[in-house]
Amino acid sequence: MLPQLALVPGEPSGIGPELCIRLAQQPRTDCRLLAFADPDTLHAAAAALGLPLKLLPEDADARAPGELRLREIRNAVPSRFGQPDAANARAVIDALLCAGRACLSGEPDGKLDGVVTGPVHKAAINEGGIAYSGTTELLAHQAGVEVVMMLANDIVRVALATTHLPLRDVADAITADGLRKAIATTHAALRRDFGLARPRIAVLGLNPHAGEDGHLGREELDVIIPLLERLRGEGMDLVGPLPADTAFLPAKLAGFDAVLAMYHDQGLPVLKYSGFEQAVNLTLGLPYPRVAVDHGTALELAGKGVADPSSLLAATALCARLAAQRKIPR
Amino acid sequence: MLPQLALVPGEPSGIGPELCIRLAQQPRTDCRLLAFADPDTLHAAAAALGLPLKLLPEDADARAPGELRLREIRNAVPSRFGQPDAANARAVIDALLCAGRACLSGEPDGKLDGVVTGPVHKAAINEGGIAYSGTTELLAHQAGVEVVMMLANDIVRVALATTHLPLRDVADAITADGLRKAIATTHAALRRDFGLARPRIAVLGLNPHAGEDGHLGREELDVIIPLLERLRGEGMDLVGPLPADTAFLPAKLAGFDAVLAMYHDQGLPVLKYSGFEQAVNLTLGLPYPRVAVDHGTALELAGKGVADPSSLLAATALCARLAAQRKIPR
Repeated sequence: MLPQLALVPGEPSGIGPELCIRLAQQPRTDCRLLAFADPDTLHAAAAALGLPLKLLPEDADARAPGELRLREIRNAVPSRFGQPDAANARAVIDALLCAGRACLSGEPDGKLDGVVTGPVHKAAINEGGIAYSGTTELLAHQAGVEVVMMLANDIVRVALATTHLPLRDVADAITADGLRKAIATTHAALRRDFGLARPRIAVLGLNPHAGEDGHLGREELDVIIPLLERLRGEGMDLVGPLPADTAFLPAKLAGFDAVLAMYHDQGLPVLKYSGFEQAVNLTLGLPYPRVAVDHGTALELAGKGVADPSSLLAATALCARLAAQRKIPR
Repeated sequence: MLPQLALVPGEPSGIGPELCIRLAQQPRTDCRLLAFADPDTLHAAAAALGLPLKLLPEDADARAPGELRLREIRNAVPSRFGQPDAANARAVIDALLCAGRACLSGEPDGKLDGVVTGPVHKAAINEGGIAYSGTTELLAHQAGVEVVMMLANDIVRVALATTHLPLRDVADAITADGLRKAIATTHAALRRDFGLARPRIAVLGLNPHAGEDGHLGREELDVIIPLLERLRGEGMDLVGPLPADTAFLPAKLAGFDAVLAMYHDQGLPVLKYSGFEQAVNLTLGLPYPRVAVDHGTALELAGKGVADPSSLLAATALCARLAAQRKIPR
């Protein structure tokens, strides 16, 4: 049985809807997609691209190019390309929450196997009176779990021990407990979702040269090294703490299943340099796989038919693979 | 008249001497090299590699493969591959200081045009009773100037606003005055040494997403943006502050002559990922061009003939180019 994935376009005035239309043109043998979206928005995107779109009921089967099963989440007002409307904030968030709920076992409609999401416009949601810091946080809160953000492309998988913090707050945010959770979540996801029996994780140092024996900071000696030794004792294959500048050398990367960076700008520049178009954003630690595009709403491109669907295609393929991996009985 | 460059092997027990021997095998049309080194160390490296070496007096001309002009800086004790001896710390430092002095106009022998250096073993120098934090700092102190460290390969040039600081000290180290000096030094070096009439410099933000309008840190609003506006008013072509994760996208990089990163691990991972072997380390702001290898002493490889000379070759070629640029009358 193929995995069933929720597909959520995100901001209706951005490029998300048209990327979903492009996605719907391709035959799929790895999953069945169910869009959580506004039908008028999808039709407008299809018309702008001159591509076919036939929205189907949930119990149908999408077979031809442009066929897409839909669970309707109606916008409050019609969406216009490039012009976010705070009145639609509720519908954007509802689509995400409905998709998440559909993947949570125990929920009445908890039958879906994963969620693929397009880009959300943070300011438009907050202007709509909804406190929103990101879809990752939204879905983690809904599921009641702590999660780890991972960015991945064909070259490297980068998990982040901290995410959207001012740089001056990063050092204090690196605690043994927080780091233990981040490593454990990453390790468990590599095993369960990626099917790696004994994943090898490279853990970066916090300081330049990984602290150089305490000369350039003590967090490695005081926090990171003792924690890694303890977790190795529990059987994890952890390398590090490694200096960030040389950990990403291609020959070294080849030996790691993932790199855990201590903070945002330590881990993501190489990820984006090495393959931005195919990069995707995974949420590790949810009860289901969730993969998002690694780009924004690109309001200025919306409706023009020029937006590159590579990230959404990669996100969908990866989510299907992760969902299938979870279905293997263990 | 060809530029004359000082060539300093660095730690005698590391791979520096044998890299110099490999360099001396190549005919040069871009510069004349003068080694500041111990002759026995160079002969031992040549013997280990099975390569010819003929050391010449300073007023000779090196023409055949293996010919190298030498200014003798004698080690205190014979060097052994892979085994640094603190007794030779003084000679290592003297070679660097003599080379620097030979490039300072006003000095009696200030006739050289640039310095190329191999890797130094920091611990061995300090064990030898000499306080040493790096060759960059040593030469800056000798010349009485403030400098900027730049790492460069064929893909990108990364200048650093701060270098070897614990991460928790970075935010406070980013001051308007320090940043102004770093930008001015980088800008001047791109003009004078690289011959770029109007260099375009990308300046990264300190915080993730360059602070996201103050939501992820205020240094961009309080320090960086006002400074960049002031310097633009003085005629500099400055882009930013840019989010570090997307500033290095290849299409963006192509539009910048250099990227100024706020700290070590923000700027160097992409540099090393994109081309470690050819990467070199430049010191901007000295009265002469200085280019170093971007790797360590690799003690475990010394004398085995397997060390890759790419970085020293690239450093020499770049230093020759920069020195020639400075000789153009303006």
